[in-house]
Amino acid sequence: MDNWKNLDTRQAYKKLLTLKGAAVSKDTLTAGRVRECGVPMAAGLTYNYAAKQADARVLAVLQCLADEAGLISKFEALYNGEVINTGENRRVLHHLTRGQLGNPVLDKGRDEGAFYQAQHKAVAEFAARVHSGSILNEKGETFTTVAQIGIGGSDLGPRAMYLALEQWAKAKGTLKLRARFISNVDPDDGAGALGGIDLARSLFILVSKSGTTQETLANELFVKAALQNAGLDPAKHLIAVTSETSPLANNPAYLASFYIDDYIGGRFSSTSAVGGAALSLAFGPQVFAEFLAGAHEADKTAREPDSTKNAALLDALIGVYERNVQGYPAAAILPYSQALSRFPAHLQQADMESNGKQVNRSGEPVGYATGPVIFGEPGTNGQHSFYQLLHQGTDTVPLQFIGFAENQSGADITVDGSTSQQKLAANLAAQIAAFACGKADPGRNKNFPGGRPSSLIYGKQLTPRTLGALLAHFENKIMFQGFLWNLNSFDQEGVQLGKALTKQVLAGHIEGALKEYAALLGL
Amino acid sequence: MDNWKNLDTRQAYKKLLTLKGAAVSKDTLTAGRVRECGVPMAAGLTYNYAAKQADARVLAVLQCLADEAGLISKFEALYNGEVINTGENRRVLHHLTRGQLGNPVLDKGRDEGAFYQAQHKAVAEFAARVHSGSILNEKGETFTTVAQIGIGGSDLGPRAMYLALEQWAKAKGTLKLRARFISNVDPDDGAGALGGIDLARSLFILVSKSGTTQETLANELFVKAALQNAGLDPAKHLIAVTSETSPLANNPAYLASFYIDDYIGGRFSSTSAVGGAALSLAFGPQVFAEFLAGAHEADKTAREPDSTKNAALLDALIGVYERNVQGYPAAAILPYSQALSRFPAHLQQADMESNGKQVNRSGEPVGYATGPVIFGEPGTNGQHSFYQLLHQGTDTVPLQFIGFAENQSGADITVDGSTSQQKLAANLAAQIAAFACGKADPGRNKNFPGGRPSSLIYGKQLTPRTLGALLAHFENKIMFQGFLWNLNSFDQEGVQLGKALTKQVLAGHIEGALKEYAALLGL
Repeated sequence: MDNWKNLDTRQAYKKLLTLKGAAVSKDTLTAGRVRECGVPMAAGLTYNYAAKQADARVLAVLQCLADEAGLISKFEALYNGEVINTGENRRVLHHLTRGQLGNPVLDKGRDEGAFYQAQHKAVAEFAARVHSGSILNEKGETFTTVAQIGIGGSDLGPRAMYLALEQWAKAKGTLKLRARFISNVDPDDGAGALGGIDLARSLFILVSKSGTTQETLANELFVKAALQNAGLDPAKHLIAVTSETSPLANNPAYLASFYIDDYIGGRFSSTSAVGGAALSLAFGPQVFAEFLAGAHEADKTAREPDSTKNAALLDALIGVYERNVQGYPAAAILPYSQALSRFPAHLQQADMESNGKQVNRSGEPVGYATGPVIFGEPGTNGQHSFYQLLHQGTDTVPLQFIGFAENQSGADITVDGSTSQQKLAANLAAQIAAFACGKADPGRNKNFPGGRPSSLIYGKQLTPRTLGALLAHFENKIMFQGFLWNLNSFDQEGVQLGKALTKQVLAGHIEGALKEYAALLGL
Repeated sequence: MDNWKNLDTRQAYKKLLTLKGAAVSKDTLTAGRVRECGVPMAAGLTYNYAAKQADARVLAVLQCLADEAGLISKFEALYNGEVINTGENRRVLHHLTRGQLGNPVLDKGRDEGAFYQAQHKAVAEFAARVHSGSILNEKGETFTTVAQIGIGGSDLGPRAMYLALEQWAKAKGTLKLRARFISNVDPDDGAGALGGIDLARSLFILVSKSGTTQETLANELFVKAALQNAGLDPAKHLIAVTSETSPLANNPAYLASFYIDDYIGGRFSSTSAVGGAALSLAFGPQVFAEFLAGAHEADKTAREPDSTKNAALLDALIGVYERNVQGYPAAAILPYSQALSRFPAHLQQADMESNGKQVNRSGEPVGYATGPVIFGEPGTNGQHSFYQLLHQGTDTVPLQFIGFAENQSGADITVDGSTSQQKLAANLAAQIAAFACGKADPGRNKNFPGGRPSSLIYGKQLTPRTLGALLAHFENKIMFQGFLWNLNSFDQEGVQLGKALTKQVLAGHIEGALKEYAALLGL
């Protein structure tokens, strides 16, 4: 198969361009359409696209586009170990961290799926020993806090997943260690995190695939200094998650080390040991296993060629219609769940770092828009903030709502005849209708144009399993969009120039404007 | 003066359209330009626009536009009490919360500036009594935590300001009470916040101007129930910030009440009692007074007609050039300070809720783009996330960097010859240069086009005074942009339709698609 072609060479795309201007309105958004437009997802979730602008003609052409571009074959090639990350000459194997999807992938004689599972097992055993009290601190006390030191993919995903399950775990009695995160090289980040914890009873997870990340190494030494100042032995408080070839591997400076390899990209590493160490320590290995099971179930669903049965595929296709045909430059992620407070920030990385590119996988400039700006905050908070622009601004921003029938903590209160959870759900339903249908009003600043498209992912409750399915849905959506745009979604060369210039600044090897800027900032 | 006209009727704007395509590059961004493009701001901050695309011709026309649109006269009219919020028939007086800018503003015989100052005094006296131990809990213990219950403008601003000063206050020994925030109607938000505090030693601030905000009233009763379950008397733990006409005013259910009025918009209320209660209780009234002094100094600077001496004005003008002439749909706020972690979320509200509108202040549709999408995260975190798209994506996103020479906590560590604070500053300087100048590379996925505009606000340290100046800068920038676009930046009718539909959902008075959506969410 060599079907790697630019989007604008596809016959179906040319047809799609003639379908510009499809609209959602109170006339199109009927009860029947809501009932018809649900796509079953993994773990009992459903993707409903009723309030999207994709009508039957658009959907038919999108399916043709998926077929023409061979999206499912490309996914198959990816999980079977083809070198999809051409720029870095790497396979892309994060799907194997949650289960075997296709054939065994052998890399230099090693079965990669088995390797990732072995790491999960090692993490689980370590976590169990911490929880059972067979690993203790210098004074023979149990650990109460786990703090992750990492940045980017070693921070945003694990942090978002921890926050997504913290209240659930508390309600279920399975919150074993509370988690904290240190990421920014700003020393105030580390100072703030350490100020709120009992150092003597804290385990730190150092996460860096290369073992050379500037921020992470600086924060490691910041934490080690704090431990030593408190009379504690850092080697009894630090574990590492890294690659086997990094300086952190098999290093007596760490109580334990767990491994990933080059085939796990940082922004797709929440289901590897990068997320596994923190989540297993915080909630127990069984909770992490459930999370993986939900993600694996979603991955299996993503192999379905029929886009009406494959939510990740359909979501990707509609997104390309919105970006390239309708011309919308941004998209919002709006979870009606406080637990998902940092989920939009994680997707912001996963999406913008993967598909924010202007050359195709062969290095040729593309002549069409690629990844949009992604942003979002939880509802109902956002309603009292930026929703004004979403409803009445001059640009249309497609919306991805997420909601659940039940909250996590079980705590609630009835006010004016409804619970807070019911109010939350009612607000979500109301917003979808308001955005799509609008409302004519003679007071023109009170007029709502409607026609603002959204989709809804919903389920019974946010649990480890549904969270895993939700995460994998978006990862796979991003992957399919990268295939459509003919990008390499798995490198991130756009971060390199800043790194190189930073080294020059710190070495004092600068002149011109850069030297002036450094001086303004006290350097 | 009746100079309220649409942007596209301005002669200077027509001229500006002929200057589309101005660029920043390694050829234009010289050391000399960096030295020349600094605009002094309040509190020792500086706005540097060297890496903006605005060349001398663009800047000259922008000044003409400011003059033609009478921006400074409009600001003067605003702070002197003209009814600028035409949609709601209200004055716009948040500037008076930090000091008298112009003439006394009398409203129904009351001096509004004096009223706001009297509220600050009442808050200060109350906070002093809490800190001195003359106000205690039922057991005679001092309070250790203050938790704000509010949403939107009653949450984002005060929360961002608290986080911005928490480490500073800790280092200065002036962190008197730690603060927490409950906003979302999702009961898991309240459950999470209450799970981490000692209820018996917590003061709660209920903030709602109208006293009728659905989320806030539900969360108040959620908190009251928790207090009662713990055998505590809510009336000894709650204070209110509201308007004098709300049901919360002069109500024995609260230990104390402080007031704002209709002339303080929620998103501009951080310098009123809405922010004052939490910040004065957390840090002491003197810290809040310093914060106000910085904001007032910035307001005074914003009266200057010469845009090379008025950073808020220049920032607004350049933003309109980028939005309406260059056609950029989004803008990023990138503070290199972990303390400003939620400052972008606050500006997202302040900007998008003010200027995300498609009718002018007379209710007529405008024929040009208004407020952009605003998003951001602190650096260096963002560098390992969405910066990939900013460097190499297909759209240009203007960037607002913020940085300081010193961190807040005083904690730091030297690694590889530089402190973490130096690394932070070096990264910031490097990013500005990388975005503007780019770098040609034969490996085409490693090629950086450059030409990505940014501005930098910098100063010695983030303190209460510089934070106040920073906040007022953005508030005034947003105001000037609203004037340019001929919008009413001070209403938010776009939030009303969702509220009305939510009530219908909760009352069960729904049919069609809305009824289906409600059912999907378990209603």
